[in-house]
Amino acid sequence: MADGKSPRRPRAETPKGFRDYFGAEVTERKAMLDKIAAVYHRHGFDPLETSAVETVEALGKFLPDVDRPNEGVFAWQDEDQDWLALRYDLTAPLARVAAQFRNDLPSPYRRYAMGPVWRNEKPGPGRFRQFYQCDADTVGAPSVAADAEICAMLADALEEVGIPRGDYIVRVNNRKVLNGVMEVAGVLDPADPEKFAHERGIVLRAIDKLDRLGPDGVRALLGAGRKDESGDFTKGAGLGAEQAEVVMGFMDAKRDTGPATIARLRELVESSRIGTEGVDELETIASLLAAQGYGPDRIVIDPSVVRGLGYYTGPVFEAELTFEILDEKGRKRQFGSVAGGGRYDDLVKRFTGQSVPATGVSIGVDRLLAALRAKGRTSADTTGPVVVTVMDRDRMADYMAMVNDLRRAGIRAEVYLGNPKNFGNQLKYADKRAAPVAVIQGGNEAANGTVILKDLILGAKLAEEATLEEWKARPAQVEVPRDQLVAAVREMIGR
Amino acid sequence: MADGKSPRRPRAETPKGFRDYFGAEVTERKAMLDKIAAVYHRHGFDPLETSAVETVEALGKFLPDVDRPNEGVFAWQDEDQDWLALRYDLTAPLARVAAQFRNDLPSPYRRYAMGPVWRNEKPGPGRFRQFYQCDADTVGAPSVAADAEICAMLADALEEVGIPRGDYIVRVNNRKVLNGVMEVAGVLDPADPEKFAHERGIVLRAIDKLDRLGPDGVRALLGAGRKDESGDFTKGAGLGAEQAEVVMGFMDAKRDTGPATIARLRELVESSRIGTEGVDELETIASLLAAQGYGPDRIVIDPSVVRGLGYYTGPVFEAELTFEILDEKGRKRQFGSVAGGGRYDDLVKRFTGQSVPATGVSIGVDRLLAALRAKGRTSADTTGPVVVTVMDRDRMADYMAMVNDLRRAGIRAEVYLGNPKNFGNQLKYADKRAAPVAVIQGGNEAANGTVILKDLILGAKLAEEATLEEWKARPAQVEVPRDQLVAAVREMIGR
Repeated sequence: MADGKSPRRPRAETPKGFRDYFGAEVTERKAMLDKIAAVYHRHGFDPLETSAVETVEALGKFLPDVDRPNEGVFAWQDEDQDWLALRYDLTAPLARVAAQFRNDLPSPYRRYAMGPVWRNEKPGPGRFRQFYQCDADTVGAPSVAADAEICAMLADALEEVGIPRGDYIVRVNNRKVLNGVMEVAGVLDPADPEKFAHERGIVLRAIDKLDRLGPDGVRALLGAGRKDESGDFTKGAGLGAEQAEVVMGFMDAKRDTGPATIARLRELVESSRIGTEGVDELETIASLLAAQGYGPDRIVIDPSVVRGLGYYTGPVFEAELTFEILDEKGRKRQFGSVAGGGRYDDLVKRFTGQSVPATGVSIGVDRLLAALRAKGRTSADTTGPVVVTVMDRDRMADYMAMVNDLRRAGIRAEVYLGNPKNFGNQLKYADKRAAPVAVIQGGNEAANGTVILKDLILGAKLAEEATLEEWKARPAQVEVPRDQLVAAVREMIGR
Repeated sequence: MADGKSPRRPRAETPKGFRDYFGAEVTERKAMLDKIAAVYHRHGFDPLETSAVETVEALGKFLPDVDRPNEGVFAWQDEDQDWLALRYDLTAPLARVAAQFRNDLPSPYRRYAMGPVWRNEKPGPGRFRQFYQCDADTVGAPSVAADAEICAMLADALEEVGIPRGDYIVRVNNRKVLNGVMEVAGVLDPADPEKFAHERGIVLRAIDKLDRLGPDGVRALLGAGRKDESGDFTKGAGLGAEQAEVVMGFMDAKRDTGPATIARLRELVESSRIGTEGVDELETIASLLAAQGYGPDRIVIDPSVVRGLGYYTGPVFEAELTFEILDEKGRKRQFGSVAGGGRYDDLVKRFTGQSVPATGVSIGVDRLLAALRAKGRTSADTTGPVVVTVMDRDRMADYMAMVNDLRRAGIRAEVYLGNPKNFGNQLKYADKRAAPVAVIQGGNEAANGTVILKDLILGAKLAEEATLEEWKARPAQVEVPRDQLVAAVREMIGR
């Protein structure tokens, strides 16, 4: 290493903000996504897999959190000087596909997509630059029946992966109602939709922060502005007190039943055409869902749902897990949001000039998986393989024939392929592999035509808690004829 | 569009060399990969999913086709001026993982990985810049038993996805034998391994082109060089005639049986220590495979297998499909190679300075899938959903209740969500969706409490070929009570 001429060795590290997934982390996620895909499939959705790379031009700029200007995409110039980038979500590529293949795709087009997306954001604890999304969208369906279908399908998907009814709730709201509120509050002029856009942005973000800032914090942001604990000042939307109360009243409009909430909303936006249209749509969604048996125990109208994304134009929805978990500091808290979506009627228009109605949902794969893990409801076979140890390296062919017999019988099995000299290392290896059984055949056993089976699961259990009687009654080690290897292993692992 | 001020619309296009995968293209690939994963799992391999992005430093430069200097990776600089890139294969990330987690991983470490990789190459017909790989590797196993296991597992995987025995062959060779040949031919000096590296590169690539150039073309490349049809001259390795014949004899060393081939190879490299070691290894691999029943009908010793990659250090293998297909010009040809791999003992050493033995295989997912399609052996349910049409948009809740009933019974179903005005469009839509059944309920049926089921598959068949009697005997359309909808649909689709 002191030799100045020898080149520096490369660092064996993932880039900052990226990580690797091993074993059960991969299979548990896959098992969950397979179940969700089956639900989407049953609802008539077809899979679509677009490439990770898109032109920057096609992606556009629709990143959710407009507060933070340093967010972005991973982009580079290709040999023709065109800018390419990794997709940051699955919606932008869908809009591109819907425009590119508009003459070939069925209309409406129901599609689902699952895969990684990339964000060039500051990484943080639990916040990675590559993560999975799992989306379902319907393109070309103007009716809110499409939104209702997505909400019902989302509820089905959550139950299918192992979140029982009562442990989740899908909340539905409508951007049109919110626009009605904006109109009544004086920050939306139907005759000039661009006017007050900046103020509306501040109102939207303020509403989205109700949980974090409380009513007074939101009121401050709706008015002159708010100074946070660090002393930083965020400029507000500049609403008067009366205007601000309209917005606050909207957030507070949820009543005990759907019809009562809808009546309260109708009252609030009475004077706004768009607001009233939004309330009508919410009413239709609720009745379509009720007809299929999706009652308020699963899907509710909730005016507090806003969704950060600027591109939503109608119904918006969010799925929340309502059970409590312990956070990293050991405090109880609700698990929170695991999926969200809504109607976005203008994304395809960017390409074609023609408005194409679309609605969809995106499931936060890592968050949902974390929830399942927290509740012990992941489903993936995490049993390790049966490990055939190597006592005599000249008889490797015999050991390989043993694993071959086991595999043919459908039993996961492997032969130890490291240096066989130290037998203790082989048992340590079997332990690390979570092997249920170790198979041993030394010279004596080979001469007798037998093998020794060590029940590692029982062995570990006995070592921890067994009485002498139990040790005697259930030996963790048996010797069986070689030709009974498969049957004996099968009995030991209980299948 | 004539308005100079309106911004140009973005083009709805994938970047050059990228493509989208729709419906069955996705599910067929997934079904195939799931089967391969099950085989890998049974052999004790654990899944690993690394991120798409690596540091350029960690990836290194191991792209296969060193002939073409314009090949490369998609790379960019991050905010800290580090160069990041999309992985170009799954082996380089494995080497990084094996080094980074060397204290935590079991040793030997058997892992499989499936996912897209990216190459910044000139795209061509059927040649894309993003494609799937499916790899299995064993890291930390010096014994050729690991290579034998990989070969046997590859044969199992091919049979599992639907390539019957006899339609494929796994060919095995050993780089050490080739090095022995190089030594005998005078282009390898064991005392100075770096010497003649350039010439050996030319020899390797010449051997790999035997199929394309024939013996005379290869001889020319081994000697002074070769002028191709276009008049371009490729400089040769500069071997004398006698030296070249040693190499030609090696390529021609395959005999009718494994033992005969091994005897011929032993003869050829008799005077080379490394060559003899390679022949011994081939003999061991053949005997380990024979002990498990993998005979020459599945796995053969074949000196013509070279593999382009420079990093192989021992056994190399390749799986070829031996059945004939028609190429794009309608000519019969053998399908060819679908997988390959070998032992590479130095990739992890780049990071740690310590040699780590490793061996593995990579399946060309798109090629194998194309082979299965050519033989009609893909397995994925491509039936479309039952389509419930909308005769009366005010009764959308009724139609959604119907699809809900069907889905609860496990039947894929959807309600038509486009503009319902033109009923013909709804049937065209059902057709485009490959729907097996259309459900119709107009005002009369609703009043009678019935639904009409149109058997679209039978209908299409009858329209093509039915006699009048058949039309009468099996009507493609029936009217049933609403509460028998599920049972009647189930009968119609035969499940």
